[in-house]
Amino acid sequence: MKAVVYERKGMVRLTDVPMPTIREPRDAIVRVTRASICSSDLHIRNGGVPRAKEGVVLGHEFVGEIVETGAGVKRFQKGDRVAVNVESFCGECFYCRRGFVNNCVEGGWELGCRIDGGQAEFARVPTADMSCTRIPDSISDEQALFVGDVLATGYWAAGIGEIQPADVVLVLGAGPTGLTTMMSARLFGPAVIVAADVNESRLALAKAHGLCDITVNPKEQDVVEIVRSLTEGRGADVVFEVAGAKDTFSLAWQAARPNAVVVVVALYESAQFLPLHQMYGKNLTFKTGGVDAGKCAEIMRLIEAGRLDTSLMMTHRAPLNEIICGYEIFSGQKDGCIKWVVTPFEPEKPIPAVVF
Amino acid sequence: MKAVVYERKGMVRLTDVPMPTIREPRDAIVRVTRASICSSDLHIRNGGVPRAKEGVVLGHEFVGEIVETGAGVKRFQKGDRVAVNVESFCGECFYCRRGFVNNCVEGGWELGCRIDGGQAEFARVPTADMSCTRIPDSISDEQALFVGDVLATGYWAAGIGEIQPADVVLVLGAGPTGLTTMMSARLFGPAVIVAADVNESRLALAKAHGLCDITVNPKEQDVVEIVRSLTEGRGADVVFEVAGAKDTFSLAWQAARPNAVVVVVALYESAQFLPLHQMYGKNLTFKTGGVDAGKCAEIMRLIEAGRLDTSLMMTHRAPLNEIICGYEIFSGQKDGCIKWVVTPFEPEKPIPAVVF
Amino acid sequence: MKAVVYERKGMVRLTDVPMPTIREPRDAIVRVTRASICSSDLHIRNGGVPRAKEGVVLGHEFVGEIVETGAGVKRFQKGDRVAVNVESFCGECFYCRRGFVNNCVEGGWELGCRIDGGQAEFARVPTADMSCTRIPDSISDEQALFVGDVLATGYWAAGIGEIQPADVVLVLGAGPTGLTTMMSARLFGPAVIVAADVNESRLALAKAHGLCDITVNPKEQDVVEIVRSLTEGRGADVVFEVAGAKDTFSLAWQAARPNAVVVVVALYESAQFLPLHQMYGKNLTFKTGGVDAGKCAEIMRLIEAGRLDTSLMMTHRAPLNEIICGYEIFSGQKDGCIKWVVTPFEPEKPIPAVVF
Amino acid sequence: MKAVVYERKGMVRLTDVPMPTIREPRDAIVRVTRASICSSDLHIRNGGVPRAKEGVVLGHEFVGEIVETGAGVKRFQKGDRVAVNVESFCGECFYCRRGFVNNCVEGGWELGCRIDGGQAEFARVPTADMSCTRIPDSISDEQALFVGDVLATGYWAAGIGEIQPADVVLVLGAGPTGLTTMMSARLFGPAVIVAADVNESRLALAKAHGLCDITVNPKEQDVVEIVRSLTEGRGADVVFEVAGAKDTFSLAWQAARPNAVVVVVALYESAQFLPLHQMYGKNLTFKTGGVDAGKCAEIMRLIEAGRLDTSLMMTHRAPLNEIICGYEIFSGQKDGCIKWVVTPFEPEKPIPAVVF
Repeated sequence: MKAVVYERKGMVRLTDVPMPTIREPRDAIVRVTRASICSSDLHIRNGGVPRAKEGVVLGHEFVGEIVETGAGVKRFQKGDRVAVNVESFCGECFYCRRGFVNNCVEGGWELGCRIDGGQAEFARVPTADMSCTRIPDSISDEQALFVGDVLATGYWAAGIGEIQPADVVLVLGAGPTGLTTMMSARLFGPAVIVAADVNESRLALAKAHGLCDITVNPKEQDVVEIVRSLTEGRGADVVFEVAGAKDTFSLAWQAARPNAVVVVVALYESAQFLPLHQMYGKNLTFKTGGVDAGKCAEIMRLIEAGRLDTSLMMTHRAPLNEIICGYEIFSGQKDGCIKWVVTPFEPEKPIPAVVF
Repeated sequence: MKAVVYERKGMVRLTDVPMPTIREPRDAIVRVTRASICSSDLHIRNGGVPRAKEGVVLGHEFVGEIVETGAGVKRFQKGDRVAVNVESFCGECFYCRRGFVNNCVEGGWELGCRIDGGQAEFARVPTADMSCTRIPDSISDEQALFVGDVLATGYWAAGIGEIQPADVVLVLGAGPTGLTTMMSARLFGPAVIVAADVNESRLALAKAHGLCDITVNPKEQDVVEIVRSLTEGRGADVVFEVAGAKDTFSLAWQAARPNAVVVVVALYESAQFLPLHQMYGKNLTFKTGGVDAGKCAEIMRLIEAGRLDTSLMMTHRAPLNEIICGYEIFSGQKDGCIKWVVTPFEPEKPIPAVVF
Repeated sequence: MKAVVYERKGMVRLTDVPMPTIREPRDAIVRVTRASICSSDLHIRNGGVPRAKEGVVLGHEFVGEIVETGAGVKRFQKGDRVAVNVESFCGECFYCRRGFVNNCVEGGWELGCRIDGGQAEFARVPTADMSCTRIPDSISDEQALFVGDVLATGYWAAGIGEIQPADVVLVLGAGPTGLTTMMSARLFGPAVIVAADVNESRLALAKAHGLCDITVNPKEQDVVEIVRSLTEGRGADVVFEVAGAKDTFSLAWQAARPNAVVVVVALYESAQFLPLHQMYGKNLTFKTGGVDAGKCAEIMRLIEAGRLDTSLMMTHRAPLNEIICGYEIFSGQKDGCIKWVVTPFEPEKPIPAVVF
Repeated sequence: MKAVVYERKGMVRLTDVPMPTIREPRDAIVRVTRASICSSDLHIRNGGVPRAKEGVVLGHEFVGEIVETGAGVKRFQKGDRVAVNVESFCGECFYCRRGFVNNCVEGGWELGCRIDGGQAEFARVPTADMSCTRIPDSISDEQALFVGDVLATGYWAAGIGEIQPADVVLVLGAGPTGLTTMMSARLFGPAVIVAADVNESRLALAKAHGLCDITVNPKEQDVVEIVRSLTEGRGADVVFEVAGAKDTFSLAWQAARPNAVVVVVALYESAQFLPLHQMYGKNLTFKTGGVDAGKCAEIMRLIEAGRLDTSLMMTHRAPLNEIICGYEIFSGQKDGCIKWVVTPFEPEKPIPAVVF
């Protein structure tokens, strides 16, 4: 079958690989109907994820149909449509029992990193009962595509932000994760969501779809000043740092009011300064880390109820044949690309001769 | 000035009373611009509120303009527009410091019950700094009318309900408090709000304004069954009992899933049965009581941001002259009346010769 | 092997039954080294637990050594010493993922009720990975005996009581569950624990071991008055009702301060009155239900650290041969009996000819 | 009267100043019966607290007897014994209503920094109703000395640490604040408290008084390794950084398990590195800031109940006459000094000719 393989640092290729098979009783094989490219795939390609294995099939955000199950799978059977979770987890260990599935002693982020993932025609999913979420009849595969990763991330971030109704929330970064953070933050009843980004078309998209109320371009406006003007001078009640740069890290705590929660959602490639002496008495809480993708059932219910909708992010759509073009366009944020959606391989169509 | 006086059990009258004056340093005098009739006023009139004093001016839900302040008032001055809180509270006692302002050792529900209230041209408000909420320029007095009582009640109830995003919430009762409970519950991101009432026009109103998603008339449909069908057989994640009858109390815990929170918002006139042996192992939490109206500033911000809007409830509107008619129409739920809004006295107009 | 069988309402017998065998992959067989009699066993014997099956081996509180495991057991192997949980649970369903293992869709209280339990020489334990807790080398079997039931219950009750440091806590009932509630409540830093019971020797025991600070006999003293005198007139911050009588239910909410949490731990045999009109404005929270025994690993760590110790409760100790005597003494609270500990069957000794 | 004056950077002197007088209605005048020296006093003396005013009387940790009250003081009267709070706060502003009294818009840390403090014979205390805590008859002034500052800090730190029963808690630093953090952490039921410091006599003191269970000298032992050995390899559930050095900041997050809370209690004089890329996926929460001293009544109740006891910290005791010697001994941690307790000025005794 066709699949995207991470060959080595700097080299990702669409090629032929063997079909996956059941290895453990709790495994399931999924026929991939929609997949996507995630910025973590770019990090792997750039050599920025040391744990990623050379030769692995990429892709950790995908949906599909179960075509085979191991003997230990109880909740799913052949024919079920599912969204696959970026993280495999056992549900039984110290961390899983506390909801910290990201740190499952048996799992964590495996798919498309240490074991073959979903930018392929088929994929093997471990601990399928825990790692898959059933897609209800009323939802299309595409509507559910982001449940297991980028939407799970925004939902997790919003959930740990301790947002109270009437809060003023600041989201730094309006890329895919920023957008899902905004739509998830909305679920907690803030009075105002302020979105900041230097990419004005992304801001415009966010506002047009009601994900935020006020947009700011930090290159042209003073974010701290604007947030203070909305809060009688105090600052944001909750800040989400989803941009991942040195200046945005600094902006995050400066724009926060005393006793705010600052959620550091972004993945940084270097250490940041924490000037504790300057923020002494400000009593800030910083929450760091990566998604705990343990609430995908809840996310699915909210999509079904019309409370979450990621369709605005699906700016591009093409068969697996063209995914390498997708890597280039997505990584360069070209053509207004937010997310590149991969539809099934079409054997009759050509594979463009691109390399990424 | 004109004011509505509770003369004795069964007798409420619009009559002339002396103008209120400053008595304590923290007092303010408010010129009432909008007031309303609350079901608690009916309870007083019926003799159901023993603590209510005969001869008191009724009215604990009103807004207006400050015309005079005591020497100890720091946050307000003459000319400020404010929503008045049903509860007076000190902000300093054991209860106030925990947010339980309803049990303030110095205050609680005084206005329109033990001291003269706001169904009048003017009213004296104790501990004005704590008991008034500033109305921003962008909000009309009328938009802010319910901030201090019926909206505060729904907001408090929703807040203690421990609603999680994606929950299925059941609200029993679609009267004024039921409606504010629904709109407040919406702030916590439930997937579905189910409203139940025997008054179908109230249900229709709630649904038309997006306050709920599904409506049920318990006389014709099985509430428990409907809620279970929405939750894979479990039952409602959170139930708000805002109807106050024996059968609704029982319905509340039956429709709840195991480990649900049941918020008993309604005011009962008699004891209820709690069949603990029948619900053993269901692990329900019951929260009882009356509004802690300590978050009016948050409510005001949400109105300003367009996240809360009570205009649908203002079905009737007339000057103070006609308030006794209002009591009759409101108490009888006649003419589709949800709330009767009282505008200022108009000296040139007659006072209808009604008695309530 | 020998085992205690619930034959029918009113009849419990020590008799011979077949050895248990592995039936499901997640099963384990445990050689019972210590067991106990629980008041729930008495409820079954009296016909008060409709779900209990006639012919079942009783006993849901026991420890032992694993002698055989099914193919799906991952965390334990032959020779491991374990405390067995009263509840079997899957760890994966809606309720288990929220910690509500009591309502596990596959399990709940099965052992010694619907499947054969541990008042026997051997027992089969389903979902052993989740339902057993490893006993560390430094702890004896006997020290761990109550981990899975009566101590889990007190620990669960204390945990949902929302106790804050410096609180005044009232525990109604100083029987086995009352005692474990007290020692668990201590973990949350209350200033004072008040214990109430009509059995003065139990009160004395509790106080002598530091489980409570003040003891009250409600027949001779006014509990409400005493609690108020400790709290500047307010009442108890948290109340645990572990006695299960009509008057104690009523006492529970009367002794509570406004906005207190009242945890209803006891198992009632009839409905109780909830006079909501009398407690209006008191804003009480009632938490009801049965133990969620999902934190046995934490309990075991606290025993190991010396923070929990149930040895004071082990007033009686005898081999399985004499367990029917134990039922009689325990049920009658004779001879100062708190808990009757069952040691292994001794073939060379006689079985007293008693019937219970 | 005699008082310690911060003259300028590097110069603190015991000298004569005018008696304080009532300036605002909510003021009280306190005759100081016990005071102490705090490390913050040293920071001021070293010029490390820019907001401190030259010429101010130092001292923000003291107790005494009220000798005069302003007209607006309601809860205290002449003759009352009180512990004074390091922070003055209004109880009414946005921050105070959320318990964040450290950020009170009218107050915060004023005493002994921006207004005259308590290293004197008398002191003026603003907003006395909120800023003083009554000392019960059963407690001596000395027992209550630390309620308003160093004990409040440990209590606040422990309270935001989200300690669960059975946790393993690591406290870095066994100075005065480390010690109060340990004794406060104990209130939340951890299984084990590990204390780390390079000062072994402080560790020994902590352990001898039961404040911690295990002691570690980071110069000789591997703290991370020890903590992991106690937690099946995970790391500490909660870490309190009370040492304030670069290496302890780094140690704090390294010794923490994934999803731990790291409370940064120490006051740093420079920025710290936060290597987010190295801790990615560890999902740590960092809580920073200075004490919110709003729970002094609770602390006092716990002292009264015998649950908190700071007497072990009072290693030195001398009249105000000798306080400058105290500064030298305390700042140098000479003679095993933990805290230097100041008793009232004794006119007949000499004032040693020392300068600090």
